[in-house]
Amino acid sequence: MRANAFYAQSGGVTSVINASACGVIETARKHRSRIGKVYAGRNGILGALREEMIDTSAESAAAIAALRHTPGGAFGSARYKLKGLDQNKAEYERLIEVFKAHDIGYFFYNGGGDSMDTANKVAEMSRKMRFPVTCIGIPKTVDNDLPFTDTCPGFGSVAKYVAVSTKEAALDVASMALTSTKVFILEVMGRHAGWIAAAGGLAGQTPADAPHVILFPEIPFDQPAFLARVKASVADYGYCVVVVSEGTRHPDGRFLADAGTKDAFGHTQLGGVAATVAEIVRSQLGLKYHYAIADYLQRSARHIAAKTDVAQAYAVGQKAVEFALAGENAVMPIIVRTSSRPYRWSIDKVKLSRVANREKKMPRNFIAKDGFGITAACRRYLEPLIQGEDYPPYRQGLPNYVALRNQPVAKRLPEIVIK
Amino acid sequence: MRANAFYAQSGGVTSVINASACGVIETARKHRSRIGKVYAGRNGILGALREEMIDTSAESAAAIAALRHTPGGAFGSARYKLKGLDQNKAEYERLIEVFKAHDIGYFFYNGGGDSMDTANKVAEMSRKMRFPVTCIGIPKTVDNDLPFTDTCPGFGSVAKYVAVSTKEAALDVASMALTSTKVFILEVMGRHAGWIAAAGGLAGQTPADAPHVILFPEIPFDQPAFLARVKASVADYGYCVVVVSEGTRHPDGRFLADAGTKDAFGHTQLGGVAATVAEIVRSQLGLKYHYAIADYLQRSARHIAAKTDVAQAYAVGQKAVEFALAGENAVMPIIVRTSSRPYRWSIDKVKLSRVANREKKMPRNFIAKDGFGITAACRRYLEPLIQGEDYPPYRQGLPNYVALRNQPVAKRLPEIVIK
Repeated sequence: MRANAFYAQSGGVTSVINASACGVIETARKHRSRIGKVYAGRNGILGALREEMIDTSAESAAAIAALRHTPGGAFGSARYKLKGLDQNKAEYERLIEVFKAHDIGYFFYNGGGDSMDTANKVAEMSRKMRFPVTCIGIPKTVDNDLPFTDTCPGFGSVAKYVAVSTKEAALDVASMALTSTKVFILEVMGRHAGWIAAAGGLAGQTPADAPHVILFPEIPFDQPAFLARVKASVADYGYCVVVVSEGTRHPDGRFLADAGTKDAFGHTQLGGVAATVAEIVRSQLGLKYHYAIADYLQRSARHIAAKTDVAQAYAVGQKAVEFALAGENAVMPIIVRTSSRPYRWSIDKVKLSRVANREKKMPRNFIAKDGFGITAACRRYLEPLIQGEDYPPYRQGLPNYVALRNQPVAKRLPEIVIK
Repeated sequence: MRANAFYAQSGGVTSVINASACGVIETARKHRSRIGKVYAGRNGILGALREEMIDTSAESAAAIAALRHTPGGAFGSARYKLKGLDQNKAEYERLIEVFKAHDIGYFFYNGGGDSMDTANKVAEMSRKMRFPVTCIGIPKTVDNDLPFTDTCPGFGSVAKYVAVSTKEAALDVASMALTSTKVFILEVMGRHAGWIAAAGGLAGQTPADAPHVILFPEIPFDQPAFLARVKASVADYGYCVVVVSEGTRHPDGRFLADAGTKDAFGHTQLGGVAATVAEIVRSQLGLKYHYAIADYLQRSARHIAAKTDVAQAYAVGQKAVEFALAGENAVMPIIVRTSSRPYRWSIDKVKLSRVANREKKMPRNFIAKDGFGITAACRRYLEPLIQGEDYPPYRQGLPNYVALRNQPVAKRLPEIVIK
């Protein structure tokens, strides 16, 4: 049996999601007797629904290899969640119809928890419709919130970016604090979980080292305690570095970023949480501050990706194909830690049905008792994930990222309107 | 004649100012018959005024060598401007007194335009007080606004950081634009000059490439024209990347960042310009946006420093000492471009009196006619400055930056209160 494969990227992209694509395509190319062409979804799953697919066989081996060091989503990704089977069976039927029209027997879906749920439902639907498609999920999310796997490809590189940036900015602030900025705030991603903020904690080893305060979404914001910590840090070390999760909340559940501030027209100001924290520092302590918002820079910073993360991203792509060829279905490769120091890991698998819609939260014992830092256990977990550098090649001073030809696959079905 | 040297860092630090310190100290150590010890000012010039100096001779050769790859100001810098000689003669007299007490015959001042002025005045004062001190300025500023020199050490690395970050974030936004963020805004430094924002322009080569819009402090903000550009970019390419200088102003001279927005308490909101531009995009075009504020990350990002910049920062430190030993006084080393492609440069010198208080603006022919991009001439100027990578060593996944011992020099004068 030989069939084509369909690969799609889902949700927020990362600096290493293309490394997973590289793992899928390179591995598929090694098994041409079983896997025909690898088609990629233009803009993720929408590419299947709209029958807008990309023929990756038109890309040279060098171009595919270059995916390993290229951030972003090479075929386009999408924030598009398929509804439940009962609510929107037509969409699943359409998917299967497109797969059928293009002789697609393998579906590789590269995303987070929602996407694993979708992949699982596609597997179910393909059984029901008696058009067997092997459905394999490939983990990806900077949020690091998928269960079972030691970490999620994409997270380690964000963690490294945040730890390095915190360390570097802290050196800047420390050197100027006597006559300039005393409090520096770095806003990082993490709406529900503080994994990324926690990574900032790797920048320092002792209480004197930055960051002096980390604000987690898991810990309700205690303004008096926070201000006391900032004040003490400035008194003791001359300055204070704060890493704040975008998802930090007031005790009543409101996001800090939703500070009820209004613009000149009376509209609610959509501000970053860093600006809110800075304003609290200014108004309550009168200290000079600066803040940075890493935003997309953190999850696209392939130039400072963690070597471990790149290797794992590639490995889950490769293993996804190997699992499919070994007859597995409705599973997701996971990373299993076999040792922390030195970090050793292997790839296993878990049923998609067990992954779907389950979030891995930060354990409370990873956050310091006072809520403002990370524990030794957290450090032991995180440290291996930022190991190693995996620099992209450069040309004319800039990373030489690949732009694929992205040749479309000719449509075979009548057009329909999606969305 | 043998005398000690005093080295001080001034103003905002950069990712390569310590490379200049490295150049000064390593070169001084090669001439022990002429230069005794190199003392560094703790917190810049304040270290001299307060007689708080650091004995760099207590540092190992390895520690001094590591300054070359360590960002921030290793001895502390200061935003502290000495007033004119007529207004504050006492401060200059105090400096000379401290120099005299510690047998300091060389003064190396590493900073921007103001610092060059100060170094020049110290030279003048030392002549008047008949205690000859050789005063050499060492250029440093991410603002790239010193005259005569081809570029200012510190700028090339910020330029590289901004170009790389723009390119990476653009790949992220492009892959998600169909279903998510359409407009991404990156705020960069540059209160008076658009050099740093211009560097963002290196990320792309064609009009389709990001950044699609650059907002310069030199060009009054034209809101309708800006909105038309954003709209066209989203229509043509699916997304729009904007790089905005913090110093971008309304036609009436007000900073965009000063948008007259109020917080819930009626206080003027101190917001970044990125938030203001984002709000304009949201309210006028209704497009989904994200923004990043690079802030100190851009000028401390030693992990992605430009090799050219590091080499030049070291060279101006080295040459400062060599000029002093050759009998020069009241000069600043400058970088002279002898060829753009390939980039070739040498070090010359200019009189401090000619540098002091003169700003190099961006030439108008470096900014596109429509005010939203850079020209080929600008590209030709900027491209060489971001060439090459000069990665720091890593340990446990983080750059291995040096922390010096910073051993104090015993005081010899009665304490006085400064500031």
